[in-house]
Amino acid sequence: MGYRDELDTPCLVVHESILRRNVEEMAAFAREHGVAMRPHLKTHKTAEITRMQREAGAIGFTCAKLGEAEALADAGVLDDVLLAYQIVGEQKIRRLLALMDRIKVTVAVDGVEGAAALSAACRDAGKTLDVRLEINTGLDRAGVLPGEPALALAREVMQMPGLRLAGIMTHEGHVAKATNADELAEIATAAGKAMVETADLLRSNGIPVDVVSVGSTPASWYTPTVPGITEMRPGTYVFNDNSAFRFGRIGVDGCSLRILATVISRPAPDRAVIDAGSKTLAMDPPQGRKGHGYIVEYPDAVIARLSEEHGVVLLPPGMQGMEVGERVEVIPNHVCPTINLQDEMFLVRDGEVAETWPIIARGKVR
Amino acid sequence: MGYRDELDTPCLVVHESILRRNVEEMAAFAREHGVAMRPHLKTHKTAEITRMQREAGAIGFTCAKLGEAEALADAGVLDDVLLAYQIVGEQKIRRLLALMDRIKVTVAVDGVEGAAALSAACRDAGKTLDVRLEINTGLDRAGVLPGEPALALAREVMQMPGLRLAGIMTHEGHVAKATNADELAEIATAAGKAMVETADLLRSNGIPVDVVSVGSTPASWYTPTVPGITEMRPGTYVFNDNSAFRFGRIGVDGCSLRILATVISRPAPDRAVIDAGSKTLAMDPPQGRKGHGYIVEYPDAVIARLSEEHGVVLLPPGMQGMEVGERVEVIPNHVCPTINLQDEMFLVRDGEVAETWPIIARGKVR
Repeated sequence: MGYRDELDTPCLVVHESILRRNVEEMAAFAREHGVAMRPHLKTHKTAEITRMQREAGAIGFTCAKLGEAEALADAGVLDDVLLAYQIVGEQKIRRLLALMDRIKVTVAVDGVEGAAALSAACRDAGKTLDVRLEINTGLDRAGVLPGEPALALAREVMQMPGLRLAGIMTHEGHVAKATNADELAEIATAAGKAMVETADLLRSNGIPVDVVSVGSTPASWYTPTVPGITEMRPGTYVFNDNSAFRFGRIGVDGCSLRILATVISRPAPDRAVIDAGSKTLAMDPPQGRKGHGYIVEYPDAVIARLSEEHGVVLLPPGMQGMEVGERVEVIPNHVCPTINLQDEMFLVRDGEVAETWPIIARGKVR
Repeated sequence: MGYRDELDTPCLVVHESILRRNVEEMAAFAREHGVAMRPHLKTHKTAEITRMQREAGAIGFTCAKLGEAEALADAGVLDDVLLAYQIVGEQKIRRLLALMDRIKVTVAVDGVEGAAALSAACRDAGKTLDVRLEINTGLDRAGVLPGEPALALAREVMQMPGLRLAGIMTHEGHVAKATNADELAEIATAAGKAMVETADLLRSNGIPVDVVSVGSTPASWYTPTVPGITEMRPGTYVFNDNSAFRFGRIGVDGCSLRILATVISRPAPDRAVIDAGSKTLAMDPPQGRKGHGYIVEYPDAVIARLSEEHGVVLLPPGMQGMEVGERVEVIPNHVCPTINLQDEMFLVRDGEVAETWPIIARGKVR
């Protein structure tokens, strides 16, 4: 029995051949441009793909939350992690110190208060923590501004016992604003240049900057190619998603992960309901396409509305198919939150379920 | 140490006094109007609150997915469930038959194909399954239309061996369209009347209709009061949320569940970042308020953007507070998906963590 009949729905299926090609292509791109690869694990949260990325040449990994790093360290696949996140609060600092006893950890800092708390804890524990300045190159989320503000923070951090300034990093997620491929390249390149200029400014003031790191799958063809960038941290590229379709760089055949779903109701000629709602597809808005996901078999059908357990699909006039009981594969708008909603993914090889991979870092919000 | 310092963040805290008041008030409302109470468990997914609702007089419960019902039956708190969902596919029908051996199960049907598959399976297994017609009173999701279409389907179902037609049900979620309280009451009342008229139509054609069931917390003050409605199935009322604030019926002090979050960055005077992003607050849009949640301590601050692990909060000019390390409580826009993102909730009594409740039906997508 093929995987489409064997599996109960909704569930995550990963097409192994596409997954492996995605992992290898991005690894080759990094090698070609002479930048180190430090993939973000938040996308897949599995030991198996972490191992696959390591075998393809990753020098280490990125996580957002301590809990993700702890889970993957427990699985024995993580020995070097960048926490691309501010670690704030007593409970987390205690866990950070414990994790530092097990694996190499680097942490993002973007302000004096946060850095000072880490410094005090590390000094008291007799440890040295590598930190990177998080630079706001335009996303306006966390991060210190490039140039002089970054220099001022770097000078403060250099004075703090227990910390070693080990580079700078940014997440150029604001490339999502781009409305075409040229604009995307322009925003990404500007972010890369701001990073390199900031690194040079720090160096010219006697502050060593070993690593200049950028991250974001949509920007990954551009930012890492700016001369002076030393590291890239893409995440989504292993699976790709409906947002990756933008501007034609990735097609359906580049999307390795799909939601296998079942049509559970056909209440009207122009309406079908699938068993994947926001509890499966997540509510992230589409970028550049309509609806809450892309139905591979019915590209003209639109997943117009989601409630938690229902996906309401509007069908174009005269469309055949999508009968009750039929199964479809949906490419989610944003693959990362989709993964976080399930306990396992099913690896498909030659049309059969070859392996079940537990999503061991799922739900690690802390 | 109080709960706000003791707990790591982000996490779910439930204020017991508000929770108990919410459970009791809705139970009293049902008693007063002579309708049976069959709460939807998708909101809380816990054994503890299921038990609390039963003690307050619930005659049974509602789940969307089989997996939720299985988990709560395993915990010994569920003996009568309505699956307000189409059960489609061999794997699920097998599980349904197994669940019927353990507890009383009723299933929604809205079409001939789905009902016929259930009928065949039950007939072969020598069982009788109670089904309810799901009626589309305006949400335009699943469901057969009221009146003649419902009658036609009822006639078909009456002929099917292994099935017993046990009533009709609707989810009047389209009250969310309302822009004021009067309009909400009007939409809810119309849905209730369509249900009662449909029940009467079926009865006048010799088809018994024992149960006329409605569900939706925002509509719960209106639809169940329509004469002839026999059952209500609210879910969100135990916690309430940012959407429940609409039209002033519920205030902050009616919201028992909050996300405890920490400020992790203050990158600009008008911007703070909290450690609750879409992986904690979910991406459900607000209804009637701005932003991705309501910060109890800072009602004028707006959670303007979410990425997975970051909530970007815009602060009004001159606002004091929200310093790095400070903790805040956030009422989510839609509490149900928020619950599904965590493994446990913490019960707060007299300012202390009194209990930890595992969210045992979390992630049961199938």
